[in-house]
Amino acid sequence: MTIKYIIKNKNKLINKKIWIKGWVKYFRNNLFLDINDGSTINNIQIVLKKKIKNINIGITLKVFGKLILFNNNIEIIPLYIKKYGNIDKKFFNNSILQNKFHNLHKLRKQKYLRFRTKIFSTIMRIRHNLSILTHNYFNKKNFYYIHTPIITYNDTEGVGNMFKVTTLDIHNKYYKKDFFGDKANLTVSGQLEAESAMLGLRKVYTFGPVFRAENSNTNKHLSEFWMIEPEIMFYNLKKIIKLSENFIKYLIKKILKNCKEELLFLENYNNKKIIKYLKNIYKNKFIKISYNKIIKILNKINKISWGDDINSNNEKILFKKIFKKKIPLIIYNWPKTIKPFYMRINKDNLTTKSFDILFPYIGEIIGGSEREYSYKKLLKSIKEKKINIKKINWYLNIRKLGNIQHSGFGVGFDRLVQLITGMKNIRDVIPYPRYPGNNNNDK
Amino acid sequence: MTIKYIIKNKNKLINKKIWIKGWVKYFRNNLFLDINDGSTINNIQIVLKKKIKNINIGITLKVFGKLILFNNNIEIIPLYIKKYGNIDKKFFNNSILQNKFHNLHKLRKQKYLRFRTKIFSTIMRIRHNLSILTHNYFNKKNFYYIHTPIITYNDTEGVGNMFKVTTLDIHNKYYKKDFFGDKANLTVSGQLEAESAMLGLRKVYTFGPVFRAENSNTNKHLSEFWMIEPEIMFYNLKKIIKLSENFIKYLIKKILKNCKEELLFLENYNNKKIIKYLKNIYKNKFIKISYNKIIKILNKINKISWGDDINSNNEKILFKKIFKKKIPLIIYNWPKTIKPFYMRINKDNLTTKSFDILFPYIGEIIGGSEREYSYKKLLKSIKEKKINIKKINWYLNIRKLGNIQHSGFGVGFDRLVQLITGMKNIRDVIPYPRYPGNNNNDK
Repeated sequence: MTIKYIIKNKNKLINKKIWIKGWVKYFRNNLFLDINDGSTINNIQIVLKKKIKNINIGITLKVFGKLILFNNNIEIIPLYIKKYGNIDKKFFNNSILQNKFHNLHKLRKQKYLRFRTKIFSTIMRIRHNLSILTHNYFNKKNFYYIHTPIITYNDTEGVGNMFKVTTLDIHNKYYKKDFFGDKANLTVSGQLEAESAMLGLRKVYTFGPVFRAENSNTNKHLSEFWMIEPEIMFYNLKKIIKLSENFIKYLIKKILKNCKEELLFLENYNNKKIIKYLKNIYKNKFIKISYNKIIKILNKINKISWGDDINSNNEKILFKKIFKKKIPLIIYNWPKTIKPFYMRINKDNLTTKSFDILFPYIGEIIGGSEREYSYKKLLKSIKEKKINIKKINWYLNIRKLGNIQHSGFGVGFDRLVQLITGMKNIRDVIPYPRYPGNNNNDK
Repeated sequence: MTIKYIIKNKNKLINKKIWIKGWVKYFRNNLFLDINDGSTINNIQIVLKKKIKNINIGITLKVFGKLILFNNNIEIIPLYIKKYGNIDKKFFNNSILQNKFHNLHKLRKQKYLRFRTKIFSTIMRIRHNLSILTHNYFNKKNFYYIHTPIITYNDTEGVGNMFKVTTLDIHNKYYKKDFFGDKANLTVSGQLEAESAMLGLRKVYTFGPVFRAENSNTNKHLSEFWMIEPEIMFYNLKKIIKLSENFIKYLIKKILKNCKEELLFLENYNNKKIIKYLKNIYKNKFIKISYNKIIKILNKINKISWGDDINSNNEKILFKKIFKKKIPLIIYNWPKTIKPFYMRINKDNLTTKSFDILFPYIGEIIGGSEREYSYKKLLKSIKEKKINIKKINWYLNIRKLGNIQHSGFGVGFDRLVQLITGMKNIRDVIPYPRYPGNNNNDK
């Protein structure tokens, strides 16, 4: 019987005898044991009638006993207890499981033990819920989930910072003899392939890992992260913006319902009003404003020119000094010079049919656009951006056969988990974060 | 209005005026247009009252017209038609969209157009359904979905054939100066990390891409494929075998219900009795037999020694000459010499608490075991298999803190799609297959 099940069905289980299995989380006065079995954030208390030898946090117990109600809390009076698993005391005493406060930085030093802490298992529960909700949302709307390739020779975003994949020691000189007979990289996005799938399936989405070999050691960058990328036939900019807002609100609405206890714990842990913050996003219409207007507004406060990207400092100014309501900000029609080649260009020939959504405190999590469907215009963009046409010819060819208006967006999933959990560092929302200097599980 | 919606609600829509958008699939006698919009395997027929210029397969149409019933089929009598998207006739005439039969080999030469064919979009629909069903199955059973890392320094299976990940040109000599300050590979399995998560969350599963740099050019090998890997606390071999059988039967039951039309089309396309084959798997208890017995049985027909792996030739013999009922075969207690280091060893010190499930015609799709939880025994296995202990120390450490009985299995997702669709070549069940010599989207 799981603790989740017991709590849910406590009324009919009170005074009954039950079996549970779980790990010791706390041990007080040699008499009170808190057990967790992973099924829920909640522990269940075992009240010992006599002392037991060699109880240690982290040890596994199998308990048979009577479920009782004491001061409105459920407890178990044990009739039989069996201990499993050895404890290496020396290792335990230097571990993050030792019963005292360990900050998040310390937890990151023993990533393989983090799952056994209340804070990290709580984040993992929310991450799981967000994953399942994402699939539910798109499946219900008749989107098809597409597994786009990880090993690729594309450079979708034109970022250039890609990981090479090789089976050779000296890659660059002998790549023709390499595994794929060609240079190979880790994908930075599944969008282009998703577009090709969309032309047969109408509505598709990806949900998989992508990679950036950027030397960024910040709170919101990972070398390996998960992206959700829907691509929809016949959608224009207005419709794709609406879909992305709707998607975020769906997730938040459901998480507020499904993960109430987890959010309350995180509020307390992070000393932030997360629930209020999320309700604010969920209840209000996102603010929509053009890039041109944003630049005019920002220019009054901070020196910024048309054509500049909006950096995190300016993002902060926007929410602190201008849009004080803490509602997400949709900025649309970005200059083509700072956006990828595949975005459809407006009639002004300067801006693209594109949008980013900025969230208070967090910054950009979503970006999207109409996709250029004209062969000629796309070819022009590819040349202007100096992209190797050989690598992108297949994508161009799609435009030769009845390609019309379509749009898509990308969501940084890990940043989304940050937004929902209120965690400051992105390394705390993914099981084994990868960043410059770290591809290990034990540091 | 999607074609899926129209077909579902045809009774109330007959004689009503409707809008549809989609692609021209067939064009006959200058009068009959078949339209598909990706929402379903089914087309809808437009009956033209007068000829229209420049209609071409692949072109996009927006049609407004009256839905009528003719010989029990629904058709649209158009009142307004608009064409979108240009067609490059020369490109079209050499493409796989041209209206004649193209074999699967030919389709693979233009992977980015495959989604627009009936056969490949059908496979993609089933692949999508299997993905969603997988998440539903585990979510309902309170498993947590874990995103295990792709870039790693583990070699879980001890296969050795891994892709290096680098940002250098000369990797092996200067890896300390490389991006991660260490050698980095693409993961071959998420199991070890999933186990660490399981110790906090009780039941977990992964569903993500894994990689093998094997020079295998067969019908069932890919360099990049998707794996599902559940790991469950407190489970023994018997329970994990039961779970895996239950999981497969759940998928088949649901697919038989959700994807009836797709399966009928595939039966016809592949000239195979897929539905009967799947029902047979779903309705019968899988046959359970020990490795020892299988060797004795096989030895009467084919020369095979205790300790040998069961190759695909012997798999065929098992189903053709011995187990003729076409029911999956669970072979358990494999020799430790041919299984990975993490499998729990039986008291005989020769075999492991492991199992593989073989499927008629397809072979192995699932393998699993109890995991070794004793620190000492695991250390011994690591040494025997000559695995670099530095790389696996974190995994060993898990055994220092109350680790007890647990089990897991892995499913090759693409082979599962092969099983359900009856497709012979694994390259036909994944959008952009990766194999030796091929990391491209257009060949």
